[in-house]
Amino acid sequence: MKKVGIVGDGYTAAELLRLLAGHDGMEVTAILSTENIGRRIDRLYPQLSGYYDLILEPSEASRLAGRCDGVFLALPHGLSVPVAQQMLEAGIKVVDLGADFRLKDPALYEKYYEKVHEAPEMLGEAVYGLTELYRNQIKKAQLVANPGCYPTGAILPLAPLLAAGIIENEGIIIDSKSGVSGAGRTLKEASHFCEVNEGIHAYGVGTHRLGPEIAQELSFAGGQMVEMVFTPHLVPMNRCILTTSYSRLQKGIAGARVREVLEASYGPEAFVQILPEGVTPHTKWVYGSNQVHIGIYVDEATRRVILISALDNLTKGASGQALQNINLLLGLEETTGLKMLGVHP
Amino acid sequence: MKKVGIVGDGYTAAELLRLLAGHDGMEVTAILSTENIGRRIDRLYPQLSGYYDLILEPSEASRLAGRCDGVFLALPHGLSVPVAQQMLEAGIKVVDLGADFRLKDPALYEKYYEKVHEAPEMLGEAVYGLTELYRNQIKKAQLVANPGCYPTGAILPLAPLLAAGIIENEGIIIDSKSGVSGAGRTLKEASHFCEVNEGIHAYGVGTHRLGPEIAQELSFAGGQMVEMVFTPHLVPMNRCILTTSYSRLQKGIAGARVREVLEASYGPEAFVQILPEGVTPHTKWVYGSNQVHIGIYVDEATRRVILISALDNLTKGASGQALQNINLLLGLEETTGLKMLGVHP
Amino acid sequence: MKKVGIVGDGYTAAELLRLLAGHDGMEVTAILSTENIGRRIDRLYPQLSGYYDLILEPSEASRLAGRCDGVFLALPHGLSVPVAQQMLEAGIKVVDLGADFRLKDPALYEKYYEKVHEAPEMLGEAVYGLTELYRNQIKKAQLVANPGCYPTGAILPLAPLLAAGIIENEGIIIDSKSGVSGAGRTLKEASHFCEVNEGIHAYGVGTHRLGPEIAQELSFAGGQMVEMVFTPHLVPMNRCILTTSYSRLQKGIAGARVREVLEASYGPEAFVQILPEGVTPHTKWVYGSNQVHIGIYVDEATRRVILISALDNLTKGASGQALQNINLLLGLEETTGLKMLGVHP
Amino acid sequence: MKKVGIVGDGYTAAELLRLLAGHDGMEVTAILSTENIGRRIDRLYPQLSGYYDLILEPSEASRLAGRCDGVFLALPHGLSVPVAQQMLEAGIKVVDLGADFRLKDPALYEKYYEKVHEAPEMLGEAVYGLTELYRNQIKKAQLVANPGCYPTGAILPLAPLLAAGIIENEGIIIDSKSGVSGAGRTLKEASHFCEVNEGIHAYGVGTHRLGPEIAQELSFAGGQMVEMVFTPHLVPMNRCILTTSYSRLQKGIAGARVREVLEASYGPEAFVQILPEGVTPHTKWVYGSNQVHIGIYVDEATRRVILISALDNLTKGASGQALQNINLLLGLEETTGLKMLGVHP
Repeated sequence: MKKVGIVGDGYTAAELLRLLAGHDGMEVTAILSTENIGRRIDRLYPQLSGYYDLILEPSEASRLAGRCDGVFLALPHGLSVPVAQQMLEAGIKVVDLGADFRLKDPALYEKYYEKVHEAPEMLGEAVYGLTELYRNQIKKAQLVANPGCYPTGAILPLAPLLAAGIIENEGIIIDSKSGVSGAGRTLKEASHFCEVNEGIHAYGVGTHRLGPEIAQELSFAGGQMVEMVFTPHLVPMNRCILTTSYSRLQKGIAGARVREVLEASYGPEAFVQILPEGVTPHTKWVYGSNQVHIGIYVDEATRRVILISALDNLTKGASGQALQNINLLLGLEETTGLKMLGVHP
Repeated sequence: MKKVGIVGDGYTAAELLRLLAGHDGMEVTAILSTENIGRRIDRLYPQLSGYYDLILEPSEASRLAGRCDGVFLALPHGLSVPVAQQMLEAGIKVVDLGADFRLKDPALYEKYYEKVHEAPEMLGEAVYGLTELYRNQIKKAQLVANPGCYPTGAILPLAPLLAAGIIENEGIIIDSKSGVSGAGRTLKEASHFCEVNEGIHAYGVGTHRLGPEIAQELSFAGGQMVEMVFTPHLVPMNRCILTTSYSRLQKGIAGARVREVLEASYGPEAFVQILPEGVTPHTKWVYGSNQVHIGIYVDEATRRVILISALDNLTKGASGQALQNINLLLGLEETTGLKMLGVHP
Repeated sequence: MKKVGIVGDGYTAAELLRLLAGHDGMEVTAILSTENIGRRIDRLYPQLSGYYDLILEPSEASRLAGRCDGVFLALPHGLSVPVAQQMLEAGIKVVDLGADFRLKDPALYEKYYEKVHEAPEMLGEAVYGLTELYRNQIKKAQLVANPGCYPTGAILPLAPLLAAGIIENEGIIIDSKSGVSGAGRTLKEASHFCEVNEGIHAYGVGTHRLGPEIAQELSFAGGQMVEMVFTPHLVPMNRCILTTSYSRLQKGIAGARVREVLEASYGPEAFVQILPEGVTPHTKWVYGSNQVHIGIYVDEATRRVILISALDNLTKGASGQALQNINLLLGLEETTGLKMLGVHP
Repeated sequence: MKKVGIVGDGYTAAELLRLLAGHDGMEVTAILSTENIGRRIDRLYPQLSGYYDLILEPSEASRLAGRCDGVFLALPHGLSVPVAQQMLEAGIKVVDLGADFRLKDPALYEKYYEKVHEAPEMLGEAVYGLTELYRNQIKKAQLVANPGCYPTGAILPLAPLLAAGIIENEGIIIDSKSGVSGAGRTLKEASHFCEVNEGIHAYGVGTHRLGPEIAQELSFAGGQMVEMVFTPHLVPMNRCILTTSYSRLQKGIAGARVREVLEASYGPEAFVQILPEGVTPHTKWVYGSNQVHIGIYVDEATRRVILISALDNLTKGASGQALQNINLLLGLEETTGLKMLGVHP
């Protein structure tokens, strides 16, 4: 039985606990908090009643040494570096659900997160935790930078096509639509029920910080810089993200190649479903599950490629993928604790 | 490995499949349908993609003989009798999720379901499947009448208090608020998104057919006829029911007895949580789980008892409880396949 | 053209502006704020773009003297007394949308609002602004205490029946279901989208401060103290309240009297609709309008009376009724600016 | 007082009635129906209670002759031609809210609506009713083809830029997100509450019939064929559409030109608001109003132009614009009956 700790007590922490309750090879030994120290976790999250009665402990990383084989960092951006360092020194594997180790270029980090990176040397060491793309590196890693929710939905469909050189690496449009839990549990006007319900709006147009993360990974996949734009929208729902991307077939490439490449890339994957011709994904089909559904539309005449992906932002887009990764880090079967189906309707 | 079949392909059937996917002692061997014969179940319900590829078969009960140890009937009201009869003759245990075996009095059935009961002699044989109340009878039964969603939420808090004789058995008010999936997958004006979203309304005021089911069980619990009223409301959400009931302490009974009786009744139960003093349940805490949360408020001065329960209408209110029951019918551990936590947020 | 000012800039202030934009006899000359001083109102509320460009002014009541014939106070509870005093001294009529002048008993105010009332002598002077019940007094008043949203929906159906002596004045149950805007624009966990959406819960069970307000008015109507209980619930929708009340016919009273009394009381009213037999109100029918819809169900055998009312908490439950009242205070036609229909769907 | 009739009784008909209730120069004399003949309109739409008591009449166009100056056709696609012909012969002006007169090319109509057009000669006569673009022609017209909801939101921001030649006319991406009322009141799986709520999905990818309508008008605006793609998405909300479009500045054009052109085009318009720099529209700001809000983002370096528009699909996207048009047809002030503000929150 592997022992894991969680640093943080927001929505992604709660989602980790939901998933870990069904994991028969892993046990949660500690949850660290800053605002709810001393409270029982099932008082904070009554959906855990009857399953967890852990008391939230102060956020001192030293508390975890000797009590954990692996640790999830579920912290606001900018706080992960010192905790990760302490864990790694203590020989504990780390999956960071925040953004602090995702961008390889510290200058980009500084620009978008408005903070000088505290340990740029760690950026090279951290493996980007998009499990389907980096599985082998993850198995050997100490530190995994768990991808953002939007990047997971944007990169999975596009990366294999760029790697195969069958779509153009410029003029890519990524138009994403997210539920509200992506903004976390913190109170802000944009999460007030009455400001969200019965409406939709875009935000961070042209400037959202997950844009560079997507661009980095698409560029790695294609072997050269992509030129793309990313626009997130807030949808009145709790969970999930739908991502609609628009790209162009390279000249001379048959439209059917898109499906061939994606099916070849993800055919054996447990958590990626390439939907049949004519079926477009609905986020409701992946609600609460670790699945990504991908729909494909290609118009060969105009060379347009429209890819639509659906995932649950808290599961495959955060805690589910984190669990996938820690399973690998700790030598367990990748899918353990992740086989639950989507809750529908 | 026990083999089970499902007759029907609506929301409760889909929910059974979700739960059974996580059950390691039970396997689904057949699903019967009338409208989707020949379709693959994961085409009808893409959330099942990657887990099920069964083809929906015609609704002929004879198809199940020899292929199942137990069968779930997930049919519209009025259709279960002949199927149940065939199953029982073939030695297959039956859990009927419909209403055809719930009321003990065929005259009441006829009045509320506008149909003469086809086999009134079966009404005595069927055990009412409110597992926490009828566990011992269920273990020995062949046929279980799975309770309605509203009745489950109304009966569980009130029955022990009536049985203990600490609340009055008249003047009970049951005011329930349900999500829309309780109305099923059939298209009707009342389920049209635009007619439901951003609004709430009562329906079946004074006449809803689940009223007599609640009255029957509360009367059994208290040993005499209760006088009560039941008002359901439709809430703009997919799942769950909140039930607020109003009753009176018997004269001379201390208010603290309410909590004592409920904690004694449900203390050891895996799926019922009596919430601490001052905590009122939120349906979000049980979303997708088999849990019932019960909150208690007593005003000794006026002798008022307000009990509030929350459950997921498709899980504890239908398919989860059905699985709890079939586990017992087939000699398995009652909680198998039902330990998943609520999906929050 | 009458001139009015608004003190406050929350949702009820914004709703006042929406309604006043369609009022041809009233003009808004000033809006006072504490948090948004100096901002243009249409930047704060872009739905007002093209109609209002007023700059929010500091909350100094003295600014309104000479600029207004009437003033709306849309302030948090506890802040209205000094402003109202200054306005009244300056000869300006006041409608207070808060709770500071609603309870006639300062002890009750102190108990429920946890504050000694600053000017108990004003409680007698203020007229309770349930327009349909107190119209004549309002016309002659200087200060109107605009009713709470829940009280409006609870009192309108019950008061005439108590006044006519046809229902019992004890054992009244009032079970209300409200949209989230009733909790205002302030950020709190209970208004976080993810904590509200896809769920329902009760709050303030047995202790909500609008209970005494309802009890006061029902007692006045019946001429003796009522014994009642009020339970509010939060529903995942922006606007509106549905109130389901349970009471008993007095012995010997025919059930048909309920409809007769309500139709006689509200027949000529512009903003109250008694729905036909068998029709229960849907909050969607009054969304954005100043209407109250009332449905009636009586079971003569058990003497039960179920009354269901629907209103928009921001319109008839707050700003619409406030406008109705200020119309009367300023000698205008009561319905001016209030004839818009509900927005459906 | 002008007299108007409505043919049809779906959501756009109900919205017309809502708006016309506040119009002091127009009176509804008849509503024709096929499914609700003989019912009172306020029984079908209780939000109209107290304002309308018209009885729905059979759908025989001859009934309208002599009783109307203008008629709104709110019919399913394919049924408008004979009714429009009869009305025009009787000298009655017509606004058709359906699609039968929008496409100028009957071959395109046949391809997308799977029906040979019954009167292709009328296509030239009908004026496309995007009021801001075709105002002068509408004033002189007999027959107006009211635009689709999606086209209104897509065309308004892009047309002036194409007309000014400052964006490229190829590679235009139009990604739209609509509320559910756009699909009408008819029951279909895609409008079932449980299939929509808590989810988002795309539909009609690459093939939606409103694509050619958008392409036609953008091509007219730019004076040459545009190459574009249109993807609609269904969002869990009742009303409104958000449209995010992606295009490219022509080489050598300064980014600031985009705002200049749009402000010059729409500055004096009552129903189009160009939002300030940095503000992106929220559909909640136009809920229930006839407004279109447009936000602008330009990245001069990459020449990307992102335009985001928000409108209410039933108001500016259908019935509000229809009323704007009939006001012009009948010689009234264009904005009459359309000055209501958005209902927020």
